[in-house]
Amino acid sequence: MRLATIRTDAGFAAARVDDTDAVEIDAPDVGVLLADPDWRNRAERATGPRHDLIDLNYAPLIPRPEKIICVGLNYRNHILEMGRELPDHPTLFAKYASSLVGAFDDIVLPRVSTMVDWEAELAVIIGAPARHVSVEDAPRAIAGYSVLNDVSVRDYQNRTLQWLQGKTFESSTPLGPELVTLDEFDDPSSLEMTCEVEGQQMQQALTSDLVFGPAALISYMSDIFTLMPGDVIATGTPGGVGHARTPPRYLQDGEVVVTRIAGVGECRNRCRAEGS
Amino acid sequence: MRLATIRTDAGFAAARVDDTDAVEIDAPDVGVLLADPDWRNRAERATGPRHDLIDLNYAPLIPRPEKIICVGLNYRNHILEMGRELPDHPTLFAKYASSLVGAFDDIVLPRVSTMVDWEAELAVIIGAPARHVSVEDAPRAIAGYSVLNDVSVRDYQNRTLQWLQGKTFESSTPLGPELVTLDEFDDPSSLEMTCEVEGQQMQQALTSDLVFGPAALISYMSDIFTLMPGDVIATGTPGGVGHARTPPRYLQDGEVVVTRIAGVGECRNRCRAEGS
Repeated sequence: MRLATIRTDAGFAAARVDDTDAVEIDAPDVGVLLADPDWRNRAERATGPRHDLIDLNYAPLIPRPEKIICVGLNYRNHILEMGRELPDHPTLFAKYASSLVGAFDDIVLPRVSTMVDWEAELAVIIGAPARHVSVEDAPRAIAGYSVLNDVSVRDYQNRTLQWLQGKTFESSTPLGPELVTLDEFDDPSSLEMTCEVEGQQMQQALTSDLVFGPAALISYMSDIFTLMPGDVIATGTPGGVGHARTPPRYLQDGEVVVTRIAGVGECRNRCRAEGS
Repeated sequence: MRLATIRTDAGFAAARVDDTDAVEIDAPDVGVLLADPDWRNRAERATGPRHDLIDLNYAPLIPRPEKIICVGLNYRNHILEMGRELPDHPTLFAKYASSLVGAFDDIVLPRVSTMVDWEAELAVIIGAPARHVSVEDAPRAIAGYSVLNDVSVRDYQNRTLQWLQGKTFESSTPLGPELVTLDEFDDPSSLEMTCEVEGQQMQQALTSDLVFGPAALISYMSDIFTLMPGDVIATGTPGGVGHARTPPRYLQDGEVVVTRIAGVGECRNRCRAEGS
């Protein structure tokens, strides 16, 4: 099953996206839907207004998650090629919900920086509360996967020891287009992820290369707080970011970023200078 | 004017706290109240149910802020005594709303750590949207001040480069008891702040010693995102934390932490082992 939050004339709506069209679910967005323990049945049985797929206007998949938890330094090959050791614990940082945009919305390039970079990531969407869960039990908390680009403003990220300020610029972070439940995958543990900028492939990895996969992350985080339905885990990015290129390559006004995960979907976002 | 979010038999309610009693405002909490541009008038004219002050049960002042933005390394004396240079930019990190507790609630000591520490902080509560505002205009965005203790789990904080995981344990962070509007202070730029553990004073500072004061922080942050009504800025802590003592001193089950800012109020929280 595929779920989306769409913009309609009446505001946001949760929708089930089928092969031929999308049908509205009686919930204002996927985050609110997931808060209902019966969300799967509600989504499967939805009989709301239908929309042609070509007309869908995707909002951020979860417009206001309680938590967006981002993971750094989590792709094995990238860590080893940088000459670092594999970490014992996941590196966690946050984004605020105001950073999110829809899967086909513009990425806003802030007026205060010219160093905006891409970071393709697998997003894990939480579908049930999880507190002190084992790695074995953690998958039960997963509603499904989506695509996120952890767009990063490198000068702000590196101004201080803490990355937050470079990670949470307003309207910087595509999330969507859809939540894909795990039963849709032959093997949800190994999905190909790519990031293209202006048609040039910049990142390519398999999610099986994650040091801490979704279940390990959920188990770890659940000792710190209760993961809640609608929470978003951005699982980290592989090598190939612009900041690490020689010379560095940053996003420019008008450029298009495509973030794609096989079987999950793709975000396609144009960069637009703030205020233009 | 002093505002609080209180627990009543009917759930949370915003209230104006007067000298003799508290009167409910028609809003479920102070965060929702502040989202109304007319919040000052609504609070001043409130005529809801009245409560004796002795009976007030304080919820977290803002139960679900859109953003909790924390500042590190922001007290001049503490930075200089550590032999560091004063920073050019504020260090920012986040907490999730699920970390908040009320001013007199228990602080939960997590089962996975024995290294829980105190950090008394002035909290700035945002009362109007602010985007790209100058330092001169920034004070208009302030609704008032409150008291926060940025309780920190030091082993988790220092496991990786990013502090988040040590800063956002569930039910760790007192916020309250009240929001005090700036007109209540003779000089809101210099307030005495202390932290006591089991009656022993551990921290003492004047907020005038902040490297980046509230207006500078708001101006800086507003280039990154829109500060929204109900957002909470935890402005940083001075010297005197337990982790820096010889030997280190951490919070124990049953101990009481008092976080006090002159003219703002105090939080008084008992530490309680998780699950007990």
